[in-house]
Amino acid sequence: MKILGYAAYSATAPLAPFQFERREPRADDVVIDILYCGVCHTDLHFVRNHSGFTTYPVVPGHEIIGRVVSVGSQVTHIKIGNIVGVGCMVDSCGHCHSCSHGQEQACIEGPTFTYGFVDRRDGMTTYGGYSERIVVSEKFVLSIPDSLDPAGAAPLLCAGITTWSPLHQWKVGQSSKVGVIGLGGLGHMAIKLAKALGAEVTLFTRSIGKEADAFQLGADHVVISNNAAQMNQVANTYDLIIDTVPYAHDVNPYMDTLGFEGVLVLVGYFGPLEPAVTAGPMLRGRKVLTGSFIGGIAETQEMLDFCGQHEIVSDIELISIQGIDEAYDRMLAGDVRYRFVIDIASLRQQE
Amino acid sequence: MKILGYAAYSATAPLAPFQFERREPRADDVVIDILYCGVCHTDLHFVRNHSGFTTYPVVPGHEIIGRVVSVGSQVTHIKIGNIVGVGCMVDSCGHCHSCSHGQEQACIEGPTFTYGFVDRRDGMTTYGGYSERIVVSEKFVLSIPDSLDPAGAAPLLCAGITTWSPLHQWKVGQSSKVGVIGLGGLGHMAIKLAKALGAEVTLFTRSIGKEADAFQLGADHVVISNNAAQMNQVANTYDLIIDTVPYAHDVNPYMDTLGFEGVLVLVGYFGPLEPAVTAGPMLRGRKVLTGSFIGGIAETQEMLDFCGQHEIVSDIELISIQGIDEAYDRMLAGDVRYRFVIDIASLRQQE
Repeated sequence: MKILGYAAYSATAPLAPFQFERREPRADDVVIDILYCGVCHTDLHFVRNHSGFTTYPVVPGHEIIGRVVSVGSQVTHIKIGNIVGVGCMVDSCGHCHSCSHGQEQACIEGPTFTYGFVDRRDGMTTYGGYSERIVVSEKFVLSIPDSLDPAGAAPLLCAGITTWSPLHQWKVGQSSKVGVIGLGGLGHMAIKLAKALGAEVTLFTRSIGKEADAFQLGADHVVISNNAAQMNQVANTYDLIIDTVPYAHDVNPYMDTLGFEGVLVLVGYFGPLEPAVTAGPMLRGRKVLTGSFIGGIAETQEMLDFCGQHEIVSDIELISIQGIDEAYDRMLAGDVRYRFVIDIASLRQQE
Repeated sequence: MKILGYAAYSATAPLAPFQFERREPRADDVVIDILYCGVCHTDLHFVRNHSGFTTYPVVPGHEIIGRVVSVGSQVTHIKIGNIVGVGCMVDSCGHCHSCSHGQEQACIEGPTFTYGFVDRRDGMTTYGGYSERIVVSEKFVLSIPDSLDPAGAAPLLCAGITTWSPLHQWKVGQSSKVGVIGLGGLGHMAIKLAKALGAEVTLFTRSIGKEADAFQLGADHVVISNNAAQMNQVANTYDLIIDTVPYAHDVNPYMDTLGFEGVLVLVGYFGPLEPAVTAGPMLRGRKVLTGSFIGGIAETQEMLDFCGQHEIVSDIELISIQGIDEAYDRMLAGDVRYRFVIDIASLRQQE
């Protein structure tokens, strides 16, 4: 089927309309008319080819909310008319140790990502949610609770699960002290989710003036991370810190704020940890440095159900598809509270 | 009371006899005639002032086995004639979060170490186990099971608990795949303990020719760590790796051998992690980098009881106190299988 999307044709050109083919639905497929699509930093990295492996044209978007318009004969749980979500993955091998333990994001063969990858079954390029319609195997389609605003729910599919997964894995609950480094798309979700789980939440930020916003999102405390006196006051405090910083940064000052057996989870940065991490505090305090990357499908549904119960969505700014380049520029400048979401109606009007 | 010990008087002089004062026993004290004392790398670091804070004369030794000769009026569990042990600590604050959770090694005020520190109650310098007799609060005295050879049990007080604690904390059992990096005092204990817990154990070593020894200690496999093909064969394999390497080294190749949510525990190195650790595998595989430092007193007793049940002691070479400098030289050359233990009878004969 012919689909209209918005694609980057090169690392430097503005995004522009792009006609492409979606596969004919398989027996296990769900066909979804896209309503909203969140704008993740990963979209920008792909569009601008920051990692060097983008093939153009690329249709970004992996925070997808839509309405089901048809289902294949083997589809059991998803019904026509349902509001559903699609996140960062649309397939995985299904049989490796990770897949069989509900951790498709860690599929040993690598999951099929929602855009810019090759579909493992038909060899077609995957195109993301900056488009009218998507066809996805039921196994990778999430149910969106009725209580949630669909536009605000879009970022839960990436920013939500990315921050939920470590909170869940490390058993954050009523008595937990949680730190969140950085107040962006990931950070604001981490605050909301940790707070709803009952934790006492501290935002670490370099920027003075974010206190009011942080408190409104649910933070109990704000620590200015380049203020040594403030950092000393919270030494040996936290059970879990979610580090959303997307570039190289010194993790040592944060490691010092972890309590005994405390855990720092990197969710935004994949590169070398420089300056060097000092082992001493890890040994003496059994402190843990680890990372987390999105989450499995079952875990994503758990997060969505939790958000449904607690009426948690992302704070968003709704934009038209025609405003995507401006949105990227504003994201780079940190000028977004806290996630752009594209109203895909604006794409249909373009036709 | 006047005690004869062996002390370093400077960073360069050979160790020599040293007369010093032990405190008069308090009501909660146990007086122990020392029989054996293990020789730990930390002793050498202190004697040679590698960290820059040694005060001389220093009497090293924190792997102490002895016989109880008297007990104070408040001592309840330890009896005259018992064979007991003293490890790296002889006191702690007793009331901080760590102490009240049985993790005296992480006492927020710092534990009182067995030698080279200041006793927190009377301000006297602490002197270690290269001596005839020691006076220690009952709370820091361990019971040595009758089934264990006392000389071989001495290294359990440091090398044993250092490797036991991460095996225990990370719940190693029948189905676990455990890696051990380095075959020294710590490494050989890690192999024995992991094997006794039911794990499948792999030794990582740079040295060809250690296979026979490793298998005899209980290892199931040996991987030559600078052989890329061998390392690739064990990618994404281990639940837990105990890294005993005591100097800066590249942990990235070992991180790659961890399975999903696998844990690498540093137990031998306190400095900066250089070359830089790459975050990517931590995120994608939820891999954990952490450390561990000796262990709490209750945990040490558990380890000793486990060793008693499984008849596990260290492989040792018994030396006289007069041979200590030669032993240090051989330790530096890696020429010890796997721990020197001083027969303190040799010190008494000196009198």
